[in-house]
Amino acid sequence: MLKGYTAPRTPKGMSSLAPAPPWNYAGNCLVVEYEAAERAVASYLPPGLEYWSPRCAVYFIEWQYATDGGEEFLDPSRSQYHETIFLIEAGLDGAPCSYCPYIWVDQDTPMIRGFAQGWPKQIGSTWITKAFELPSKATPVVGPGGRFGASLAFKDRRLAEAVVTLREETKALPTPNFARAVNVRHFPELVAGKHDKPAVHELVQLKSRDVKLSPIWKGDAALTIFDHPWLELADLRPERITAGYRFCCALTVDDLILLKDLR
Amino acid sequence: MLKGYTAPRTPKGMSSLAPAPPWNYAGNCLVVEYEAAERAVASYLPPGLEYWSPRCAVYFIEWQYATDGGEEFLDPSRSQYHETIFLIEAGLDGAPCSYCPYIWVDQDTPMIRGFAQGWPKQIGSTWITKAFELPSKATPVVGPGGRFGASLAFKDRRLAEAVVTLREETKALPTPNFARAVNVRHFPELVAGKHDKPAVHELVQLKSRDVKLSPIWKGDAALTIFDHPWLELADLRPERITAGYRFCCALTVDDLILLKDLR
Amino acid sequence: MLKGYTAPRTPKGMSSLAPAPPWNYAGNCLVVEYEAAERAVASYLPPGLEYWSPRCAVYFIEWQYATDGGEEFLDPSRSQYHETIFLIEAGLDGAPCSYCPYIWVDQDTPMIRGFAQGWPKQIGSTWITKAFELPSKATPVVGPGGRFGASLAFKDRRLAEAVVTLREETKALPTPNFARAVNVRHFPELVAGKHDKPAVHELVQLKSRDVKLSPIWKGDAALTIFDHPWLELADLRPERITAGYRFCCALTVDDLILLKDLR
Amino acid sequence: MLKGYTAPRTPKGMSSLAPAPPWNYAGNCLVVEYEAAERAVASYLPPGLEYWSPRCAVYFIEWQYATDGGEEFLDPSRSQYHETIFLIEAGLDGAPCSYCPYIWVDQDTPMIRGFAQGWPKQIGSTWITKAFELPSKATPVVGPGGRFGASLAFKDRRLAEAVVTLREETKALPTPNFARAVNVRHFPELVAGKHDKPAVHELVQLKSRDVKLSPIWKGDAALTIFDHPWLELADLRPERITAGYRFCCALTVDDLILLKDLR
Repeated sequence: MLKGYTAPRTPKGMSSLAPAPPWNYAGNCLVVEYEAAERAVASYLPPGLEYWSPRCAVYFIEWQYATDGGEEFLDPSRSQYHETIFLIEAGLDGAPCSYCPYIWVDQDTPMIRGFAQGWPKQIGSTWITKAFELPSKATPVVGPGGRFGASLAFKDRRLAEAVVTLREETKALPTPNFARAVNVRHFPELVAGKHDKPAVHELVQLKSRDVKLSPIWKGDAALTIFDHPWLELADLRPERITAGYRFCCALTVDDLILLKDLR
Repeated sequence: MLKGYTAPRTPKGMSSLAPAPPWNYAGNCLVVEYEAAERAVASYLPPGLEYWSPRCAVYFIEWQYATDGGEEFLDPSRSQYHETIFLIEAGLDGAPCSYCPYIWVDQDTPMIRGFAQGWPKQIGSTWITKAFELPSKATPVVGPGGRFGASLAFKDRRLAEAVVTLREETKALPTPNFARAVNVRHFPELVAGKHDKPAVHELVQLKSRDVKLSPIWKGDAALTIFDHPWLELADLRPERITAGYRFCCALTVDDLILLKDLR
Repeated sequence: MLKGYTAPRTPKGMSSLAPAPPWNYAGNCLVVEYEAAERAVASYLPPGLEYWSPRCAVYFIEWQYATDGGEEFLDPSRSQYHETIFLIEAGLDGAPCSYCPYIWVDQDTPMIRGFAQGWPKQIGSTWITKAFELPSKATPVVGPGGRFGASLAFKDRRLAEAVVTLREETKALPTPNFARAVNVRHFPELVAGKHDKPAVHELVQLKSRDVKLSPIWKGDAALTIFDHPWLELADLRPERITAGYRFCCALTVDDLILLKDLR
Repeated sequence: MLKGYTAPRTPKGMSSLAPAPPWNYAGNCLVVEYEAAERAVASYLPPGLEYWSPRCAVYFIEWQYATDGGEEFLDPSRSQYHETIFLIEAGLDGAPCSYCPYIWVDQDTPMIRGFAQGWPKQIGSTWITKAFELPSKATPVVGPGGRFGASLAFKDRRLAEAVVTLREETKALPTPNFARAVNVRHFPELVAGKHDKPAVHELVQLKSRDVKLSPIWKGDAALTIFDHPWLELADLRPERITAGYRFCCALTVDDLILLKDLR
């Protein structure tokens, strides 16, 4: 009898790439909030979501993860990863939500946890400026004038880079954010004749609990999205940049809301 | 209207991590054929397969891939990857087949193509000796006495290493092999209360076409599988090593056979 | 006229792998202080240093670096790296110092900066637990009971792993440390007949300035050094572990002291 | 008594990053021969070389290496690497030679072997199309019409990409090539006041022996060199592309010729 929340499923069930939830996360987020072309944003909406605004955001996050009592952070190659998430604002039942067109991580475990939540994850390389607690020319301050950078690359091409200059604390998170995030869970068929009839195709809403936030720093931002020979990411390039943010967050995931079967 | 065989699904459908089949592959394979403990092999069989023999094999493969006319190999970071596949022999309807308990690749695109076929893929680092066409102390010959090595690592721990010494040509492939390979397609649920009720859980048989093989070299082999703090791979360590092999293969995949819904 | 502190030297001098000093660093250090076999420690001393004690330490550090005004941390793939440093205690002119038998980094720029200082750098993979400022099962606290791990791998084999449990603040740094660090600068000859007559072979003492330290946390530690087929690192494995430490440091390097030409 | 051709130098001398020569190499080379702006080429010449022509070449090579009897290729993470080499033609004593302004490898051992020879190596990511011996849409043929690609990236930015289409066999290697290659060995000082007075600064000529070449395929080529925020590589971008090549080579290195001390 094979056991495990994900493959590989094994006799003892210890070898799953992702163990069963709850999944606990802590991360430092660097965010650029911006507006893209309305037509581009509208063209990315899945069935069930309506156009709401041209608002987008890109989140660069360094994460650490553990299960309850698992202390996976003690073997950090098992626990740490970097992530770049693009979000667009959308409408659902007359209220705004967020939808993710593109996301990259640099480890396999978050990739497969992400697929279970409907994140369209690929493997990419994300770098984010760190803040150290000592004054040095080698680190920005987490405070007025502190400058933080980030970059994203995919298969040896740089896709995006950003710089955020902190100005002041704020109470408001960037928009769009993860408070009401809607994804599409998708798992394809390979049987001939069914390549366009996925086995799983569902509109879902993310759930998280025990969300905690540090003070939120806000400021100015620059963001460049580079052309790419086949990725359509540059269609979502910024027409107007509204703000940059930096904050720490922690949360737990062990549930999901099924909104609609799209098959 | 979003398009694409896999996520990310986009307006033009050019950005899917894996484009729609057919998928064409060419690869150099280094193989160690061995026997593990009967009880260990039997413990790994999914519902629908029966115990057949203690025979196992590990395949270390350097692959190059392209779609029909896509020539992805011209941008080789998009096309090349290394793979380590463990196979165990099993019985299905009174005849032998092969089943894959563990597999590692070093790129995201083969990971997601693999999930569609039921391969339990994780990201790992595989290295395989290359053969060059000139005589040199830096390369083995593809012929009697030629020695080839391989290694597999996962999250900064070496899992396995092998050396094969070629002796003679043979007509027979290693056993088990890919001729009748059976996988389990698995996609989990995250909705609370359903963590043990996967959305997809199917016994499937792989299909490939236009399979081509180079001359097959056979010889002696050594294989070490290392202990690991949580992976159960070492339960499949060799009790007896029967042979080593090296050959090149090419094949095309665009179909799959559903054997049984396991839900 | 080609310019640059290191190769590649170019017309504008902007392309050197390492720009000219000053080099400013900030880093988080996780340290295990231990004793190895006396004979092993003594066998690693270069000419000019005498045996002092069996004391050793391994430092796992996540660094960020910038030149004066360069703000390289805004393009962090240029600025960040991880490092594992082994130090042994030695005697020089009747007083203790530290000497580095092995060190690994994960980027090329610190490798070449290190060669200029006599660090015997190789490329390796270091992972270190991060601390986040929010309470979460995904992060240790920087305080009593906080547990931090680290690992080092080299060419797909794990070389060392450690866990430190913080207990209390201390005023004292680990011993050995970087306060009086002595290296050997070495640059080989390739001209036939001179392979054992290096072009540069010097005993040097490191200099740093503007050193800053955060509060220093001290506690218990575990450290495993694994066997390796050709690296002699395991000769320095711990016979007794004395303490673990965690702290942040910042410093600037732009000078070096030549102690003795060893040619 | 510490031993070893390079650091780390150890009691048994088994741990040097690069063991003592001879070093034996076998590699598959994909080459684009082109002309850059005369002024750009001239500006890259070190003291001792004169301007000769605008001819340049970029070599993308997958290498495997071993010492005499070392069989390092059996543990291939120790032996294999990818390399991108830019060469410009120069004059020395009234005859043409080649000089290397930029070179990237993806392992530490070839980096340090390269420094001993004066190659200005950095760590970069090189990908090169492979040829398999079976007909497949996943591989080019080594023959008329066969198309091979390559790419180079450095710190998450793509620097160059190329495609070569084979047309016919030739007897002539690309120009410039390695037959008369001149490098600058350089090792900096860090002692204050000596940052511009390197400890080693020598014009050297490479020596290799037992050079073997496969049949040489020649054809058409495309080459793009991308802009970069600080690397000056794009100054050497192609004004005219003359040919592309593919061949295998093997050689042994254990000597070097000192031409001139540049200090």
